[in-house]
Amino acid sequence: MSEDRYIYDLSEGDASMRHLLGGKGAGVAEMNRVGVPVPDAFTVTTVACVETMNRGGQWPDGLADQVAAGLARLEERTGRKLGGKDKPLLVSVRSGAVFSMPGMMDTILNLGISDESVAAVAAEAGNERFAWDCYRRFIQMYGEVVEGVPSHLYEDALTALKTERGVAQDTDLDAEDLKGLVQTFKRISTEYLGGDWTSDPVEQLNRAIDAVFKSWLNPRAEVYRRAHNIPADLGTAVNIMQMVFGNRGDTSATGVCFTRNPSTGEKALYGEFLVNAQGEDVVAGIRTPRTLSEMRETLPDAYDELISTMEKMEHHYKDMQDMEFTVENGKLYLLQTRNGKRTAAAALKVASDLVDEGLITKEEALLRIEPAQLDQLLHPAIDPSHGKQSIATGLPASPGAAVGEVVFDADTAAERGGRGEKVVLVRYETTPDDIHGVIVAQGILTAHGGMTSHAAVVARGMGKPCVAGAQGIRIDAVGKKLTIGDRVISEGEVITLDGTNGLVYGEALDLIPPQINEDFQHLVQWADEVRELGVRANADNFEDASKARELGAEGIGLCRTEHMFMAQDRLPAVRKMILAENQEQRAAALAEILPMQQTDFEGIFTAMKGLPVTVRLLDPPLHEFLPNLVEQSLLVQRLEFEGGDEQELGEARATLAQVKKLHEQNPMLGTRGCRLAMLYPEIPDMQARAIVRAALAVLDREGETVGVEIMIPLVALSQELKAQRAIVEAAVEDEFAKAGRRLDYTIGTMIELPRAALVADKIAEHADFFSFGTNDLTQTTIGISRDDAENGFLTNYVMDRVLERNPFETIDVEGVGQLVATGVEKGRSLKPALKTGVCGEHGGDPDSVEFFNSVGLNYVSCSPFRVPIARFAAAKAVLKQR
Amino acid sequence: MSEDRYIYDLSEGDASMRHLLGGKGAGVAEMNRVGVPVPDAFTVTTVACVETMNRGGQWPDGLADQVAAGLARLEERTGRKLGGKDKPLLVSVRSGAVFSMPGMMDTILNLGISDESVAAVAAEAGNERFAWDCYRRFIQMYGEVVEGVPSHLYEDALTALKTERGVAQDTDLDAEDLKGLVQTFKRISTEYLGGDWTSDPVEQLNRAIDAVFKSWLNPRAEVYRRAHNIPADLGTAVNIMQMVFGNRGDTSATGVCFTRNPSTGEKALYGEFLVNAQGEDVVAGIRTPRTLSEMRETLPDAYDELISTMEKMEHHYKDMQDMEFTVENGKLYLLQTRNGKRTAAAALKVASDLVDEGLITKEEALLRIEPAQLDQLLHPAIDPSHGKQSIATGLPASPGAAVGEVVFDADTAAERGGRGEKVVLVRYETTPDDIHGVIVAQGILTAHGGMTSHAAVVARGMGKPCVAGAQGIRIDAVGKKLTIGDRVISEGEVITLDGTNGLVYGEALDLIPPQINEDFQHLVQWADEVRELGVRANADNFEDASKARELGAEGIGLCRTEHMFMAQDRLPAVRKMILAENQEQRAAALAEILPMQQTDFEGIFTAMKGLPVTVRLLDPPLHEFLPNLVEQSLLVQRLEFEGGDEQELGEARATLAQVKKLHEQNPMLGTRGCRLAMLYPEIPDMQARAIVRAALAVLDREGETVGVEIMIPLVALSQELKAQRAIVEAAVEDEFAKAGRRLDYTIGTMIELPRAALVADKIAEHADFFSFGTNDLTQTTIGISRDDAENGFLTNYVMDRVLERNPFETIDVEGVGQLVATGVEKGRSLKPALKTGVCGEHGGDPDSVEFFNSVGLNYVSCSPFRVPIARFAAAKAVLKQR
Repeated sequence: MSEDRYIYDLSEGDASMRHLLGGKGAGVAEMNRVGVPVPDAFTVTTVACVETMNRGGQWPDGLADQVAAGLARLEERTGRKLGGKDKPLLVSVRSGAVFSMPGMMDTILNLGISDESVAAVAAEAGNERFAWDCYRRFIQMYGEVVEGVPSHLYEDALTALKTERGVAQDTDLDAEDLKGLVQTFKRISTEYLGGDWTSDPVEQLNRAIDAVFKSWLNPRAEVYRRAHNIPADLGTAVNIMQMVFGNRGDTSATGVCFTRNPSTGEKALYGEFLVNAQGEDVVAGIRTPRTLSEMRETLPDAYDELISTMEKMEHHYKDMQDMEFTVENGKLYLLQTRNGKRTAAAALKVASDLVDEGLITKEEALLRIEPAQLDQLLHPAIDPSHGKQSIATGLPASPGAAVGEVVFDADTAAERGGRGEKVVLVRYETTPDDIHGVIVAQGILTAHGGMTSHAAVVARGMGKPCVAGAQGIRIDAVGKKLTIGDRVISEGEVITLDGTNGLVYGEALDLIPPQINEDFQHLVQWADEVRELGVRANADNFEDASKARELGAEGIGLCRTEHMFMAQDRLPAVRKMILAENQEQRAAALAEILPMQQTDFEGIFTAMKGLPVTVRLLDPPLHEFLPNLVEQSLLVQRLEFEGGDEQELGEARATLAQVKKLHEQNPMLGTRGCRLAMLYPEIPDMQARAIVRAALAVLDREGETVGVEIMIPLVALSQELKAQRAIVEAAVEDEFAKAGRRLDYTIGTMIELPRAALVADKIAEHADFFSFGTNDLTQTTIGISRDDAENGFLTNYVMDRVLERNPFETIDVEGVGQLVATGVEKGRSLKPALKTGVCGEHGGDPDSVEFFNSVGLNYVSCSPFRVPIARFAAAKAVLKQR
Repeated sequence: MSEDRYIYDLSEGDASMRHLLGGKGAGVAEMNRVGVPVPDAFTVTTVACVETMNRGGQWPDGLADQVAAGLARLEERTGRKLGGKDKPLLVSVRSGAVFSMPGMMDTILNLGISDESVAAVAAEAGNERFAWDCYRRFIQMYGEVVEGVPSHLYEDALTALKTERGVAQDTDLDAEDLKGLVQTFKRISTEYLGGDWTSDPVEQLNRAIDAVFKSWLNPRAEVYRRAHNIPADLGTAVNIMQMVFGNRGDTSATGVCFTRNPSTGEKALYGEFLVNAQGEDVVAGIRTPRTLSEMRETLPDAYDELISTMEKMEHHYKDMQDMEFTVENGKLYLLQTRNGKRTAAAALKVASDLVDEGLITKEEALLRIEPAQLDQLLHPAIDPSHGKQSIATGLPASPGAAVGEVVFDADTAAERGGRGEKVVLVRYETTPDDIHGVIVAQGILTAHGGMTSHAAVVARGMGKPCVAGAQGIRIDAVGKKLTIGDRVISEGEVITLDGTNGLVYGEALDLIPPQINEDFQHLVQWADEVRELGVRANADNFEDASKARELGAEGIGLCRTEHMFMAQDRLPAVRKMILAENQEQRAAALAEILPMQQTDFEGIFTAMKGLPVTVRLLDPPLHEFLPNLVEQSLLVQRLEFEGGDEQELGEARATLAQVKKLHEQNPMLGTRGCRLAMLYPEIPDMQARAIVRAALAVLDREGETVGVEIMIPLVALSQELKAQRAIVEAAVEDEFAKAGRRLDYTIGTMIELPRAALVADKIAEHADFFSFGTNDLTQTTIGISRDDAENGFLTNYVMDRVLERNPFETIDVEGVGQLVATGVEKGRSLKPALKTGVCGEHGGDPDSVEFFNSVGLNYVSCSPFRVPIARFAAAKAVLKQR
């Protein structure tokens, strides 16, 4: 039986092997292949990690031998020996997943330094202190990451030593101090591990690889994967690479660079470096680095080579690259290259520029855009007319604006943000452990770290505003206080972040809608040329309709009428209608509501003139317009106890009686939608008249009106639609007759119950169009009440991966999607040209849009601000299906 | 263009033409064909009625001409002329639907009598009074039924005349009086109709036919069709038949007869007749008739001919016949024959006897049984040990016993019965207008009318107990009082009816389960030989399980475990579990519940030993075990106002907090079923252990135990079943290990959500069996909350025929059925031998059983008392599909 191959040497890989070698492994192999200087290395495959997970942590047969052989070959090639007395080999052991998960998994540097090798390292470097500092750092990192020794044990020993020596900085400790510290660290480790500590570098390497495997399953990585929809079963590769040292003195350095500005997309030098430092110092944001342009003076040769390498790699990958490098004694090494994470604005500009530069086609440019990410461009910014002074300035680490109450730890942020409260997470610096707080915060403020610090990278990826490394702010996380000058801000006070300009304001500022720039217009126009799905918006007032049109909506796919009923000034008339004891009283109350509805429709129709507007007739159960049962019951009892005004009590009791009468066990499945209209045909009659009158009024005033589409909600039975269609047609024709003129109009239905999809051929008989209400269809198909579930088991299901995605965010293709496909197919079996759309929130979700495109819907409809996202998503769907 | 043919002469029809000529038209034609004496006639087809309805009441082209031609031929054959001066032809105009709807539509007798013809009628009869009485009856009937003249106008005039003449009875009026009355009636009619009254018999005939068409749509016919699931679009035929007169004196008579006893099925003379009367007098129950055997003396020749005709027709139709006859001057005419309506007991006996007599096969016998009707056999009877005196005696018109509060009108019965209250409808006599009250009443008591009166016929058809023509009872419908001797019973007081013996008791008596007799055993055994579906019962305690087994259940298809949780003595432990703050507390509470559950299971398993039992793990949301939110909120507020015991208030608040926490907007779609078990795996663990311990204990004690089938509820995702299966398997295996022995067992799932059916192939991977929970599947597929809807719009939907059937009673084949079929098909695509069953209430509904048989389920499961019904229904399903 031949063994699986789990190890690839650096020279054996290339960019195409990403799934096997991870992004990092494939990237360095590709750089090596095209002649970019890369330290020598070998990679343990993702398959080895997956098999280890599947065996409950046990390595597959042969892996240990293959690691040993890979190491032997690396030693052979470098002429060095891991932990050897002469020419020792030191390596880094890094995770490298298929999809980038920055900082989420473990890394061990300087592996190979040992009692045997430390002298040789010192000799080679000509710097004994460097060697012993490496060694104590290694023990600390290896002990913590691989063996789980609590970090404070090492920190305490370090602090004790500094106190003993009377020094403040680590750098003030000399070689002898560090030598002693290595002994102390070894003793601490051995004691903590009860003798299981190893000083054998080969054994350390094996344990380090195993630790990286395990870090795939650590909670923060799991949270990150969920947030980015990365499958849980991919596993990580492990890269073992010869160490190069950016901390060998003033001709050494380490840094990260982007081939273009990841925040704006501009083609300009972008990067940071630190002289005499190791890479983790930059990424972790512990020391504030210098900008790349300064490197030209400090390290001119390495700088030139870096610039040409950046250009080479960008051309090679035809995309903006994010690279890590180290300069060792003046010689440049690249440690990593990958397509750089970028803001949505940068993504648009880079894609647009790459097309202009002839590197990629328009279609490729569109495929580069992650539609969901565009959301951040559509986020509000601070209203510039505020006239307030900022209280602090930092790096503009992720654009956009955020207003929220200050919280000082990720757990609190996660808890309060999870409840829907707006919070800003304020941290000295963020670490991968904070990820759950970052996800729900409105924005992030850190006192430390640069543009490539953890907080900055993560916030940009999520389209969340971030101000990093803010000057002069002091954070007391325990006392829950933020001090800026003499201003003290406690937990719960509101601040505003301007991530675009790096400013912090000590109060809530007004936000304004985002501006759509030229690059955006550019690309979205290309998207429009490609896409097949129409994109409409869900809007039920003039403002939203106008905004939707401005963002490119080609009509309204869902104009709800219940918000018009719920407006405070309408409720008295609406309640009169509900409390009506007979048809006449109800008709009288509806007559009061009619002109109000008409006015609303006129506003919407004016905003949308020339385009189609689908108006959904009243959908919610009547009790939604009445007080809550519990509250009204308590009110009556309270009035009884207080023995107050008889009339007030009488009215409260009458209302309670009505609330009880209309109360339903499961209102979601109750007397709503067309069921209500079947009981009270006066309601659809009134609504149809208001729609027609508004459409005619707009025609008179504007010379143009909308394409009127009247939609009957919650149809389960073809008889319902038949009956409702007759009522609406009669009212519409009556209005036309009275007005002495007519308009084209259509009548259709929501398909939002499983039965409707199953008998869509029967329903299509009476429908001019179908609009899939995938919110309700999801609720009934899966049997989940959204309100209850998202506060309950559904969250656990997504957390525990019982469900891969929240089906209310991305359509459940397997279940709900099957019904959508059936509905379209059966509907068109009767009427081949039946117009079909979707008006659930899925209409603005890119993955769902891709599905809707695949089943041949005519359009999607989503909230106004998601219209551009849907336009891109629709284009991508076409391109991906080609 | 050739016209459709709308008229068939008597000699042109036969029994096979029932859909065109209606039951009555086809029946008389068939009798004529085989030589039974029938008055001459012609029939207007059901198609003519349907086309008239479709044209909004306008007759189709050619119908009027065809009626005229049909009349001309009838006149030719009889040598008489409608309304003619000499030898006048008088006819009856009767409705005749495809399916018998006794008394629901209109009838006009004596049409053809007129100013022209009355003298000739008198001369032919040799009785002037007879002729004028016919004439005034005709005007009254025609005026009311065809022209809509209020009946009281005629009644008032009649009363005034009697007062004027100083007589009490109609029969005391002489020919001259009646002659004057005819003039008065004509004047009344003309005045009321504003001149539209016609005295032309041909025009009257046309209008009468039209009135019969219209009567198809009258409300009482509509109610009857709904109750009997008769389609609304069949229409009625109209039979125009030469009048024969049972009221020509003492050698004339009219009557109805059954070829066997329709109450018991015994082969014995059964019928009633009235000398010198017209047919309506018998059917309407206005005069109490004599039994048929008495006719032998009164009218010996006609009697002999009737007996031989009865025998002939029963052999001809191979089924018990219900016949109407008239003797005119000693000559027998048959006016109608049809398969007689009968009680379930009679149906069984007749079918069994007909097989014994060699007239039909066993399969034909089974096809004769209406399984739903068997329900009445399974109704309780009065416990014979009651020792009470009956307070009244009447005719045993429909067997079974009923206990309920007295109501005196159909509207009140409909209203209160509709709310689920038990009422007994007490009427002087029932009319077709009372049908909506009869449907919901527990039983019917009338003071008047015989075994073939309206109340009796309708009650038998519905399997409702009825005591008819009770002696010595006085009914004051206005004062809402029933007086028997000196006992006065007011509305709302409870009585008991014994329909089997015709007794009335003035209090609530205990009822006992029905006895299954020999005929029943006989036929159900034949059914078992034929059927392919297994029949199980839903039962969750020893008593129900034992009863189910006695009634032939082949196992338990649904043993719910929540009732065990809800028992009053368990609730404290259950609440402890719900209120547990951590897993340990919850486990401790569950440990208290385990032995209780085990005891319950032991009882059930003992009753079912040797058969399979499907135990469903806990299904309802936890808040069902806590107090109601509104009530608890009110309690807390009340305690606050009263300022009482601090501890009580504290506890009430704590409970309220928990109730609020568990409260859901739509509990039907909430955290229940396996979702609960996913959150609290301790619950399925405990339940699995209780099941295994019980099964082993029963094995030890009884030497035999059940086939254990553990069922996971509310699965939507294959991941859920996978996870739950693992939990249950672990618990079961652990119990086996502890016990040192094992049992065979299977684990399956409910398919009760649309998604589960849609992805049944994925779910089948982890399931040994599927049980379709069609109650919940109906709720989610159609989006209807059963509790809310049956008190709300659903009732209207069925009433208005938006829905043909209540989908919770008979499965919605088109929608929900499609998902059941998909679930079976997809499940078996993965596991061809997958066992599938149904455990919703549809399992006991014959039409639904037929559907389940057609999609290839292995078994149905229903409530214990419906097990025999399901056995018959399953057999019929097979026979009908052959």
